[in-house]
Amino acid sequence: MDLSLLATLRAKNPIVFNIANFVTVQDVANSLNSIGASPIMSAEPQEAEAMVQIAGAVCLNMGTLTTAQVTQMQAVGQLANLHHKPVILDPVAVGAIPYRQQVAQDLLQTVKVDIIRGNAGEIAALAGIDWQARGIDAGSGQADLVQIAQACAVKQRCVVILSGPTDVITDGQQVIQVKNGTPLFQLHVGSGDMLSAMVAAFAAICPDQLLAAAQMACLTFAGTGELVASQMTANRPATFAIELIDKLSLVTAEELENVSRVSSGK
Amino acid sequence: MDLSLLATLRAKNPIVFNIANFVTVQDVANSLNSIGASPIMSAEPQEAEAMVQIAGAVCLNMGTLTTAQVTQMQAVGQLANLHHKPVILDPVAVGAIPYRQQVAQDLLQTVKVDIIRGNAGEIAALAGIDWQARGIDAGSGQADLVQIAQACAVKQRCVVILSGPTDVITDGQQVIQVKNGTPLFQLHVGSGDMLSAMVAAFAAICPDQLLAAAQMACLTFAGTGELVASQMTANRPATFAIELIDKLSLVTAEELENVSRVSSGK
Amino acid sequence: MDLSLLATLRAKNPIVFNIANFVTVQDVANSLNSIGASPIMSAEPQEAEAMVQIAGAVCLNMGTLTTAQVTQMQAVGQLANLHHKPVILDPVAVGAIPYRQQVAQDLLQTVKVDIIRGNAGEIAALAGIDWQARGIDAGSGQADLVQIAQACAVKQRCVVILSGPTDVITDGQQVIQVKNGTPLFQLHVGSGDMLSAMVAAFAAICPDQLLAAAQMACLTFAGTGELVASQMTANRPATFAIELIDKLSLVTAEELENVSRVSSGK
Repeated sequence: MDLSLLATLRAKNPIVFNIANFVTVQDVANSLNSIGASPIMSAEPQEAEAMVQIAGAVCLNMGTLTTAQVTQMQAVGQLANLHHKPVILDPVAVGAIPYRQQVAQDLLQTVKVDIIRGNAGEIAALAGIDWQARGIDAGSGQADLVQIAQACAVKQRCVVILSGPTDVITDGQQVIQVKNGTPLFQLHVGSGDMLSAMVAAFAAICPDQLLAAAQMACLTFAGTGELVASQMTANRPATFAIELIDKLSLVTAEELENVSRVSSGK
Repeated sequence: MDLSLLATLRAKNPIVFNIANFVTVQDVANSLNSIGASPIMSAEPQEAEAMVQIAGAVCLNMGTLTTAQVTQMQAVGQLANLHHKPVILDPVAVGAIPYRQQVAQDLLQTVKVDIIRGNAGEIAALAGIDWQARGIDAGSGQADLVQIAQACAVKQRCVVILSGPTDVITDGQQVIQVKNGTPLFQLHVGSGDMLSAMVAAFAAICPDQLLAAAQMACLTFAGTGELVASQMTANRPATFAIELIDKLSLVTAEELENVSRVSSGK
Repeated sequence: MDLSLLATLRAKNPIVFNIANFVTVQDVANSLNSIGASPIMSAEPQEAEAMVQIAGAVCLNMGTLTTAQVTQMQAVGQLANLHHKPVILDPVAVGAIPYRQQVAQDLLQTVKVDIIRGNAGEIAALAGIDWQARGIDAGSGQADLVQIAQACAVKQRCVVILSGPTDVITDGQQVIQVKNGTPLFQLHVGSGDMLSAMVAAFAAICPDQLLAAAQMACLTFAGTGELVASQMTANRPATFAIELIDKLSLVTAEELENVSRVSSGK
């Protein structure tokens, strides 16, 4: 694992262009700012190309999509492809809502997505595997989650991050598992959106090493959350979110190395 | 009062579909999550029916309405009626802005609203009573507020929650007053929006007992705020909001019972 | 400096109508509420005039503009001119994105803007001075910033606030410098948006003394931030934002006078 990517990110201060979920957009902006990136958000097609040009990566979040936003996502995604900027897709609720399944499939056909970040239900849906969108934690074991992530990566030809108590990262062959985290992430709305934006920030600084970027983003986010949770005496979801954003600006590579529980294989 | 509804809510984890106010949407989402419900937000008509079908209740918040959002509210409200899901309306600023008065009246004619939650000025406007939208706290006593709430409930044929230092809950005949709370609620933007969403969460688990749901939502929200405020040494509105969301995930029925100041009559 | 404006603001509780940036809108609303003003937000043209009529000032924030929002900004700005309500413009990223430069110029031609609040790159762009939008802190000294602010004020015929480590306030001739602040403002997304709204709140209570309003808004915001930062032991950006909003509701004119580092001249 390349822990030096954290210092690189903070030195380069990459701009991440987010087509955002309006529920969690402020947390996403602040978490990007805290880790050392710069967030920009825009819903206006006339400035899409200028935004893509100054950005280091693009993050398309389907959390509160509308048809106008879908059009914007396609335009921004295609511009990012043209300008060789990594595209990260967060297919929120794609397994639960048929319309979103259709939108995601259309997006994946018209835009070359570099990394998909979703939970088990979302990744299963994009892998074409039948999976109940609710009850994600019930039932299947970790081995299934690796297979689901790999199937999605092969089908969609990109890096996949299936996030959860363990984050599974794969390009279809190589598999990295980041076992850090805390159940407090589930208690705060927007944890997944923040992780997707974090992935975009790391992808912006090493667009040719997307597996390494994904791995370091997951370790940074999950490890920082774990460090914060270890100091808390009760499950306080709002305080956790505040302290998570605080700690993202303070966390060191050494701290992350010390808590890291990462395995890799094929 | 049925304090066991809190445990029921946490066990059932109902989905609340919010047509949201973009100013306070993150607080609404996090407060729903903390109490044990699941928030979903969507502005896209094509997924409205799927969202209504997976939801246990619908909350229509007029806080930052646009004509497009009004159309969406009508569609979502009618779908909720069709699928027998409770509809909660938060008529933000309906007493202050004539356009909103018109929108609310149109909504109330085309959608069967089950519960209206507003402040005194808003409920008075929907009762057809002349009332200055500003200066709500000046002047009239508690007796007037009960009459206003009852008049609104009779006129609109639904349960009404007139919230304030005392929350008045009525179906037009029966009157429940929840006297818990703290002035800190007024110092944080979005307290009312959070309460409306909380009402929707409780309505989702007992759609046939809306007075009980409304009562328990008001006690849970106001009582939790009172518990948080009792531990604070200064009026810190942002800290209050963080600790309120924290406490919503930790509060017990026993704690609420101990602080409860509720009266009922006709 | 007229420190009594703080007490006036809290007594009059002015309404500030914000055409808002959706990333930071909740912080803007809560900071206005904390200082003693009342925020309203609306994106609906049909209620624009009613909103302007009840408002004491209007704040147009270009942070996440769309063509629909630009149309709304022009209508609201013209209505504010008609009803003699001060108009504050926050030209977010106008120096970095050509489309925004065009939007700002069109707005400034069709609406009489009373105060522009931006960072060095934004103010330089509206002064017609070539300036790299990024790398604002690198390079030029304070003298240049005063000249840039004056050039913008002369060109746009309004009061200009060029905010940064030192806030430069000018009508083109008189120059006031508020040297309070903390680097923590840079670590939180939305600090500038909150300052612009604060300027609108003070302008609402003394529309005929815009330099005094701007000066007091800058001192209140920067001085409060400095007071908060002086109690912190590490750079915690999210905690800083929470405590900033808390302190805006508690800060006294005496505290601000004690930390004040303000100079004025021509």
